[in-house]
Amino acid sequence: MGAGLNATHDPALRSWVESANAADADFPVQNLPFAVFRRADTKEPCRGGVAIGDQVLDLGALHALAPFSGLAAEALGACAAPALNALMAQGPGAASALRAALSGALRSGAAAAARLRSLLIPQAQVQYQLPASIGDFTDFYASIHHATAVGRLFRPDSPLLPNYKWVPIAYHGRASSVRVSGFDFPRPHGQLMPAGASVPQLAPARRLDYELEVGIFVGRGNELGTPIALKHAEEHVFGLCLLNDWSARDIQAWEYQPLGPFLAKNFATSISPWVVTLEALEPFRVPFTRPAQEPAPLGYLDDAAVRAGGAIDIRLEAWLDTQKMRTVGAPPQRLSHSSFRDSWWSVAQMLTHHAVNGCNLSPGDLIGSGTQSGPAADEAGSLLELTAGGRQALTLANGEQRTFLEDGDRVTLRGWCERAGFARVGFGAVSGTVLPARTA
Amino acid sequence: MGAGLNATHDPALRSWVESANAADADFPVQNLPFAVFRRADTKEPCRGGVAIGDQVLDLGALHALAPFSGLAAEALGACAAPALNALMAQGPGAASALRAALSGALRSGAAAAARLRSLLIPQAQVQYQLPASIGDFTDFYASIHHATAVGRLFRPDSPLLPNYKWVPIAYHGRASSVRVSGFDFPRPHGQLMPAGASVPQLAPARRLDYELEVGIFVGRGNELGTPIALKHAEEHVFGLCLLNDWSARDIQAWEYQPLGPFLAKNFATSISPWVVTLEALEPFRVPFTRPAQEPAPLGYLDDAAVRAGGAIDIRLEAWLDTQKMRTVGAPPQRLSHSSFRDSWWSVAQMLTHHAVNGCNLSPGDLIGSGTQSGPAADEAGSLLELTAGGRQALTLANGEQRTFLEDGDRVTLRGWCERAGFARVGFGAVSGTVLPARTA
Repeated sequence: MGAGLNATHDPALRSWVESANAADADFPVQNLPFAVFRRADTKEPCRGGVAIGDQVLDLGALHALAPFSGLAAEALGACAAPALNALMAQGPGAASALRAALSGALRSGAAAAARLRSLLIPQAQVQYQLPASIGDFTDFYASIHHATAVGRLFRPDSPLLPNYKWVPIAYHGRASSVRVSGFDFPRPHGQLMPAGASVPQLAPARRLDYELEVGIFVGRGNELGTPIALKHAEEHVFGLCLLNDWSARDIQAWEYQPLGPFLAKNFATSISPWVVTLEALEPFRVPFTRPAQEPAPLGYLDDAAVRAGGAIDIRLEAWLDTQKMRTVGAPPQRLSHSSFRDSWWSVAQMLTHHAVNGCNLSPGDLIGSGTQSGPAADEAGSLLELTAGGRQALTLANGEQRTFLEDGDRVTLRGWCERAGFARVGFGAVSGTVLPARTA
Repeated sequence: MGAGLNATHDPALRSWVESANAADADFPVQNLPFAVFRRADTKEPCRGGVAIGDQVLDLGALHALAPFSGLAAEALGACAAPALNALMAQGPGAASALRAALSGALRSGAAAAARLRSLLIPQAQVQYQLPASIGDFTDFYASIHHATAVGRLFRPDSPLLPNYKWVPIAYHGRASSVRVSGFDFPRPHGQLMPAGASVPQLAPARRLDYELEVGIFVGRGNELGTPIALKHAEEHVFGLCLLNDWSARDIQAWEYQPLGPFLAKNFATSISPWVVTLEALEPFRVPFTRPAQEPAPLGYLDDAAVRAGGAIDIRLEAWLDTQKMRTVGAPPQRLSHSSFRDSWWSVAQMLTHHAVNGCNLSPGDLIGSGTQSGPAADEAGSLLELTAGGRQALTLANGEQRTFLEDGDRVTLRGWCERAGFARVGFGAVSGTVLPARTA
């Protein structure tokens, strides 16, 4: 599983970009995640960039210098475009070659430092776009802790459905409403059926929630009709990001039978601008935390590599700051935290299952992991879980109470990996603010 | 609702393309549907075409002649591309102007006839592509007869769920696996849980089905966060086609709780090559057949125009020919027929509901109506309904029996409109053949 460790993971590496060397930096030279950006408030063409410390290295400008050769040059050429689909389509070899070349150019002592310094733009001065043109967005339900907690609200006696431990459950989401971090959106209207009512009403959703997820960008695609074997699944992954699948629980409760969530989810989905390559995450592979006595998956979802290192220990956090908190300058408050290592299904298992019927995945497709909750009460990845379906309000540090999100609330998801003997690898953040509902 | 009748609907119009004047022609000069095509077995660029009789008028070549001016010329320019998204984005005014200009050029006595004759290519000599690059595919569940029949199989006492008559139920489908007519595909593998078993198995689906649907291509889009008022909904529709939402019922039964169908549907969806504009369908508007005593929809889904002419009387048919039938030269056999007029929800209601939460629709998005079944037993739009969930096999004219589709079976959907005093307007057909499952 994965290509293993190489010279780019060496914890001794430092960068000539000084901000990349801080112990708590999200973007040291061992990370090198990709985004699409331009300078804020300009009409510049968008192009690819790589994060180093608090800077963006402009890959469009770098390509013009033709600094690399071979596969790395080919991959760099694809980064001059306003979406990274072509880079993703080239597969892991190309991305790895580019990563190695960038690692060489950005490390302390690199001869290229003098030429490259002028290609750095402070992250504080850029605006991001989606890293790829997203053809299809699929959202899984890979956390058994989330599935159990949500199931318990509806079926206290049998919270987990019989298919859960066998089928990586997923549904198709809406690609058109995926936005990069910083997208603020009005509280959506929808049909609600209040308890005890016999006629629904059209009204702004009252039970608006976040979902703490990992996003997966598909790299090389597969042809329609051709499944993806588990041992090759990660060759079809470009990298991972953070994903907030905003959800209107009251719209969902009334609409979701029998075909699943629809308008409850498709008004906005937010992702972090930076996509961390699977290669950068290699040091943080761990075994699943699922109990050994559980049934083994069917053969097509099971192999020794998945059992040994299929999970990735990505620490995840959800933070809230309310309008009141911002007005008085109070800091955001952490609502919950979890780790992707507790996921029931791995990235490879999700992709293999998605294509087992021949369904074709395309470069730039986005796959959500589903809400990642952990086994403990404060590891719940949504307000639905944290407030027992809205029955137990949270009291915030400033005395405000929350069951679900109120107008002006901003949710920020953060994620990072750390492990003794390795450099920290961060995902940055994805934020979004709930605006008041539109008036008709 | 709609722009009403105009000179292009005149039943007295005839075309200088003689095959367009046959009484049973799908593509008379009153229709003028759009497709994307190239000559079969060539590497020509794909471009737009309009159907006239048994011919395709090459709109790429027509554009090079610059025969039109104003809006019609602008619309024609968008037809030279290998996908019609730009034409769709221009909105109904542009499409209507182009339609009027083409109607003038293709009618008997047109001065342009001599110049245009060399731009005709027999439909038998072309291959079609998808008419647009499909950003998102949504599938509704708009036939109450289908919803009731399927519900009865699972819940005999309460077949229709409480939300059905209020919410236009829909789910997101897979855009990447939508293919134009003629796409043959292997029987998909998937997880199946046989009755009485306690462990699922990975195997080829045994309960493979077709679904008889109408497809809707979105024209002008809406911005994320901006709903579409019912009275403006049809301004966002480019046209309609036929759609077969192939379904694996056994995969669906095991996977669909709690998030809806996923791998049961996303291995292939077939559409007809020709998109019939909403304007061409104007003569066939009819009131809904829903009983008057049923609850009126909520206000955002209700207006006088929808009540008076929201439905469209599109006759729909599903035909089967098996490998055995083809071997002996036996004709295809009709399995069922229905009309889109029996739909519980109209095209406008589906669009308005889809966007009521601010969800953004984009030019070229595809929306399925869901299986269109009528009230009578032989008006069921799927084998699931025709065979009572596989319990009552159909006996075909040649003695073969079917519960679900077998390898080698070809399903063809047809659709057309007819009404006294108007020319027939047809959709052509969409076909696909089930191939044997892949061997591992």
